[in-house]
Amino acid sequence: MRKLNWGLVGGGEGSQIGPAHRLGAVIDGHYAMVAGALDHRAEAGRAFGRKLGLAPDRSYGDWREMLASERDRDEPLDLVTIATPNATHYEIARPFLEAGFNVLCEKPMTMSVEEAEEIVKLIGDDGPICAVNYGYSGYALVRHMRAMVARGDLGRIRLIVAEFAHGHHADAADADNPRVRWRYDPAQAGISAQFADCGIHAMHMACFVTGQEVDRLSADTVSLIECRALEDDAMVNFRMEGGTVGRLWTSSVAIGRQHGFDLQVFGETGGLRWASEQPNQLIYTPVGGRTQVIEKGEGGLSEEAARLSRVAIAHPEGFPMAVANIYVDLADAIRGAARDGLPTSADGVRSMAAVFAAVESAKSGGAWVDARPPMFR
Amino acid sequence: MRKLNWGLVGGGEGSQIGPAHRLGAVIDGHYAMVAGALDHRAEAGRAFGRKLGLAPDRSYGDWREMLASERDRDEPLDLVTIATPNATHYEIARPFLEAGFNVLCEKPMTMSVEEAEEIVKLIGDDGPICAVNYGYSGYALVRHMRAMVARGDLGRIRLIVAEFAHGHHADAADADNPRVRWRYDPAQAGISAQFADCGIHAMHMACFVTGQEVDRLSADTVSLIECRALEDDAMVNFRMEGGTVGRLWTSSVAIGRQHGFDLQVFGETGGLRWASEQPNQLIYTPVGGRTQVIEKGEGGLSEEAARLSRVAIAHPEGFPMAVANIYVDLADAIRGAARDGLPTSADGVRSMAAVFAAVESAKSGGAWVDARPPMFR
Amino acid sequence: MRKLNWGLVGGGEGSQIGPAHRLGAVIDGHYAMVAGALDHRAEAGRAFGRKLGLAPDRSYGDWREMLASERDRDEPLDLVTIATPNATHYEIARPFLEAGFNVLCEKPMTMSVEEAEEIVKLIGDDGPICAVNYGYSGYALVRHMRAMVARGDLGRIRLIVAEFAHGHHADAADADNPRVRWRYDPAQAGISAQFADCGIHAMHMACFVTGQEVDRLSADTVSLIECRALEDDAMVNFRMEGGTVGRLWTSSVAIGRQHGFDLQVFGETGGLRWASEQPNQLIYTPVGGRTQVIEKGEGGLSEEAARLSRVAIAHPEGFPMAVANIYVDLADAIRGAARDGLPTSADGVRSMAAVFAAVESAKSGGAWVDARPPMFR
Amino acid sequence: MRKLNWGLVGGGEGSQIGPAHRLGAVIDGHYAMVAGALDHRAEAGRAFGRKLGLAPDRSYGDWREMLASERDRDEPLDLVTIATPNATHYEIARPFLEAGFNVLCEKPMTMSVEEAEEIVKLIGDDGPICAVNYGYSGYALVRHMRAMVARGDLGRIRLIVAEFAHGHHADAADADNPRVRWRYDPAQAGISAQFADCGIHAMHMACFVTGQEVDRLSADTVSLIECRALEDDAMVNFRMEGGTVGRLWTSSVAIGRQHGFDLQVFGETGGLRWASEQPNQLIYTPVGGRTQVIEKGEGGLSEEAARLSRVAIAHPEGFPMAVANIYVDLADAIRGAARDGLPTSADGVRSMAAVFAAVESAKSGGAWVDARPPMFR
Repeated sequence: MRKLNWGLVGGGEGSQIGPAHRLGAVIDGHYAMVAGALDHRAEAGRAFGRKLGLAPDRSYGDWREMLASERDRDEPLDLVTIATPNATHYEIARPFLEAGFNVLCEKPMTMSVEEAEEIVKLIGDDGPICAVNYGYSGYALVRHMRAMVARGDLGRIRLIVAEFAHGHHADAADADNPRVRWRYDPAQAGISAQFADCGIHAMHMACFVTGQEVDRLSADTVSLIECRALEDDAMVNFRMEGGTVGRLWTSSVAIGRQHGFDLQVFGETGGLRWASEQPNQLIYTPVGGRTQVIEKGEGGLSEEAARLSRVAIAHPEGFPMAVANIYVDLADAIRGAARDGLPTSADGVRSMAAVFAAVESAKSGGAWVDARPPMFR
Repeated sequence: MRKLNWGLVGGGEGSQIGPAHRLGAVIDGHYAMVAGALDHRAEAGRAFGRKLGLAPDRSYGDWREMLASERDRDEPLDLVTIATPNATHYEIARPFLEAGFNVLCEKPMTMSVEEAEEIVKLIGDDGPICAVNYGYSGYALVRHMRAMVARGDLGRIRLIVAEFAHGHHADAADADNPRVRWRYDPAQAGISAQFADCGIHAMHMACFVTGQEVDRLSADTVSLIECRALEDDAMVNFRMEGGTVGRLWTSSVAIGRQHGFDLQVFGETGGLRWASEQPNQLIYTPVGGRTQVIEKGEGGLSEEAARLSRVAIAHPEGFPMAVANIYVDLADAIRGAARDGLPTSADGVRSMAAVFAAVESAKSGGAWVDARPPMFR
Repeated sequence: MRKLNWGLVGGGEGSQIGPAHRLGAVIDGHYAMVAGALDHRAEAGRAFGRKLGLAPDRSYGDWREMLASERDRDEPLDLVTIATPNATHYEIARPFLEAGFNVLCEKPMTMSVEEAEEIVKLIGDDGPICAVNYGYSGYALVRHMRAMVARGDLGRIRLIVAEFAHGHHADAADADNPRVRWRYDPAQAGISAQFADCGIHAMHMACFVTGQEVDRLSADTVSLIECRALEDDAMVNFRMEGGTVGRLWTSSVAIGRQHGFDLQVFGETGGLRWASEQPNQLIYTPVGGRTQVIEKGEGGLSEEAARLSRVAIAHPEGFPMAVANIYVDLADAIRGAARDGLPTSADGVRSMAAVFAAVESAKSGGAWVDARPPMFR
Repeated sequence: MRKLNWGLVGGGEGSQIGPAHRLGAVIDGHYAMVAGALDHRAEAGRAFGRKLGLAPDRSYGDWREMLASERDRDEPLDLVTIATPNATHYEIARPFLEAGFNVLCEKPMTMSVEEAEEIVKLIGDDGPICAVNYGYSGYALVRHMRAMVARGDLGRIRLIVAEFAHGHHADAADADNPRVRWRYDPAQAGISAQFADCGIHAMHMACFVTGQEVDRLSADTVSLIECRALEDDAMVNFRMEGGTVGRLWTSSVAIGRQHGFDLQVFGETGGLRWASEQPNQLIYTPVGGRTQVIEKGEGGLSEEAARLSRVAIAHPEGFPMAVANIYVDLADAIRGAARDGLPTSADGVRSMAAVFAAVESAKSGGAWVDARPPMFR
């Protein structure tokens, strides 16, 4: 089976998310990294590309240059990953998609619902793939949660409680640090900071695990460091189309929380807990029974969980493996074997709609707001 | 120092909360249990009283009988604890208070804000003591949290996130079990079930630890087992008078959670986590620093925490000791040395106001509602 | 049922173990504390006794005075607890027992195997009760472990791994602190320090849970703070009479461990883990199955565990409750209803034999040594 | 920088350790997998090689064929990994080393001390690299432990307590399963089973972290499933050359333990705990201070820990990343920049000496035995 040709836009030296993509793409041998426009500073990007082993003529100074060059090659890229600052996702993803490239876009896919709907329409039924990197959905035990829900192990899902809390932006003295400040600057981050950054991971996960979409929501958002124009803490209550109630808290000022992305799912006949900092255990309690620990790699897990585990039980697998699993599913999809769990542009547009709904609700004192994208109403 | 005379109303054989009171009152030798009206079934109550060692003439069949008899004794009761079903707290507490007895009332203190305000007014500045059993506030490390906040270890408190989640009422097949059903029956439980039962513990704790009162709130309540007239799950966002933002989730259908009363406090310069299932450790993170574990009984804790620890570091102390600490403070108060942390009828009325505000808000689609009792506005 | 008369020798003001006894004895209403010789400094002891509410004529300056006075009273003490320094246990316990008093003695019961055997012989078949305070055996879930083993839930027990590690004597700069130094001084502590202090708790627990006695052992002991004449760290391998293999590590220089008394039991068909710092959960894994959490207070526990739980599931119960459970069983025994789990002088002599065997083995380079008391060979 | 050419012997389809090598080698882009003899069944090996993308002429049916072919190529292999059954390591590694290939050998490096010494001598001062895959030493926080010890954060190291306990061979009914049985068959496993399989990982780690070698040891080994000729449980006490005391327990019948490789290090001024199932946190307690949590990826970690972390703080990294770190260091070493932490054949021979010493000691009733290889005495 030939390796797929992979190109990366963004993810330059020192990038936070870049390594997860580079590792995730190559780990399983499905892709060869053959092209990149890795930095908005052309020369830095070219140099880093060469350092990573790209051929000089495919180590680009600019994504436009990359697009122009790659579209005419005999063996074009099978997949382009976009890991640039949020505000540029749309302007980059769109022309690549229009040119027929498959794209894996970092979240948020766009800065507006309208842009996101355009992407979905552009792809239509027979366009290229546009996946969005909700990387946590790649964890083997997240897939197992989804499988347990789908096969009815928990009965009807009554309630999902999600949180994504960290404290890395809690120091007011550090609020002007450029690595932090842009996140709360509407010009760069859009209309939402913490909810759009972390909250939508949690909301996507709620949908992913339950197989339901969010119908409406009520939000309370605050800027706990007052100088910020955008929220650093939000609570969102929501209702899903299948009737599940959702509660989602996200914060960037929760000092002591490192990467507190935790999920609790409660159905009629059982409950589940999963925490992204200990992703290799899943806590399951049947109603009236004892709490038990499901281990990644144990015998008898769902096919999805088994397929996406690489090393033996209790050998931990971490975040790069979760991202790698997204790439595995993408490789299958590119090769024609569609994977059910792959987060797509439909998820991307739903996230954008939720972001805008949350901002609207918070402005209206917590009023319940339709959280669906217009195109899906 | 003579022992204080203690009487108990309710808490009969098989009662859930009775043992915590009987243990808590006697552990430290401050009280002798001398009277009781322990059961609404007169004969069962008398028999249980005698079994517990009460003199036959002080083992009553009815609280009215107990009140009538005890008010005329030469050595009257120093304290009467009321641990009867919620709907009877007010009708019992009020005449005991009017007769001049000090009272420790189980929560909720009353079934309405008006009744609660009457209790507060009745006591006034020079009436007997009316304490309310927010027993978790008795834990040594809860006192230490409060001391840390008071002395500024966390800076200004930005956010408090509380949850009290269990799954003991999650089985729909068990919803008609009388031990469960009454809790969701407005005739017996009042206008709120889970929030009034567990949520107000969490809300009291938020106030207790921050030293602030709740100003207004927005609530989302649901009955996840549909046949219930009252909520079994609630999310309450609130604002405190000192500006702290609060988020409080409570549930009785969270399968797998046993006694998930957890508190997170986030200030400008640090964060705290405490969980009632591991009450002897307090997790503290200074901003920009490492998470550390504060142990009950370690050297250098606040005076309150030291005073209320009984056995050496890492010898666990549990819930009966927390309740005992309420009794210790009450004994001091009865003997004239007022204790700052004692939960009083003022806390009781605030809880009732919060319950009614939450119900009103939820009915209004999450509108923000004044959560203060009228008398404190 | 009349209250039993209880007296305490030792456990003066500031004592570490005294509070656990005073709380444990009175919590359940079985005993009234009526006499005490609480301090080797006569006046301090009398004053503390009066402070605790003892009648002046039963608040003694000396245990001999107490013995002389109490043996002639009409209503003699039903139980005398001895919580004095280790080296005095035998000289105090013996005359009380000879005078017919029931005794609860702190461990170690004596300083030599010979003394311990004398106690056992003195009691014989019809003497008073001599219990030894292996307090951890009072925890409800420890009783449940024992019940699970006894009814065969784990099959034949292959292996038991125990540790009791703390770091409270790890600071060399603090080695001369009198509160620490005496423990490593042969004149006061006898031939063993850490193993005799903590290790025998773990060894007793191994016997208690398995229902087997220790047959032989091999020990490696070291003084990691070199100035010490006695060991501060020991590893003991042992074989039990029923064939179970044991491994026991104990240390007082394990910085970071607070009260690391943990037990693992491995049988043919299951394993158990229990940790004294989280005594209300028991971790159980059936062979080939998932790890599950047994909660104190859950439905369907063994009769012993249910009998010795006081408050509802997930309301933690701590060390004072474990000690109280020893007192509960003692009260039953004093009243004639023998309790199977009560640690007795037979356990005391076995512990002393193990201590001497461990010292002998360590001196012989780890040779395997008979660990049984001569009287039980 | 050109990619290094990598070949793999063993690690065929379904192998437990194969995936960790394949992932570990390619993750960081240092190596291209270009050759393999992946299975002792020639055709299966060739087919799996082709499936993994190897050229047909470098997908060998046998390691001898691979050696013969690769030694004559113009661009020979830069590294050969040997992941075959234990008994074959020596016979394969030796000829590859003699032919000048760098080798990464799975542990145990050989089946005897003599063979291991021959490997060390064969390499001498200027031979190829022979590394041994003590993969756990690649974890970033293990490197940080080592750095903390080296720079004196804990003072002199008094004690190291290691355990590697699992229960995956605990089912007697499963003892004849071929995947289990060979491990306890002297013909295939050599003179030791559990200690040689898991225990030496723990012993290597003790040496790795302290920077000391093991001087002598005393062992107690047992076959808790009686039909086994080799031990399934062992306790080893040891002394290190720098004076540190060691205690090491390993078991394969510890039902409920999944991958219980845990390390505790106790020095004069601090203690550390690390557990391989939660490899991204390191628990540190300074003497007299509070326990704190060191997070992989936090600011200010040692250079080694920072260099070997790939994704941001609290994004977990797992076992494949630890193995990848061994490959990173090997790549540096192959390119001439020797890495200090790389486990080498000297570690391999020390492990073999420890295995033989443990067996000898256990046979002699726990006598203390020199654990050093003759060549290092």
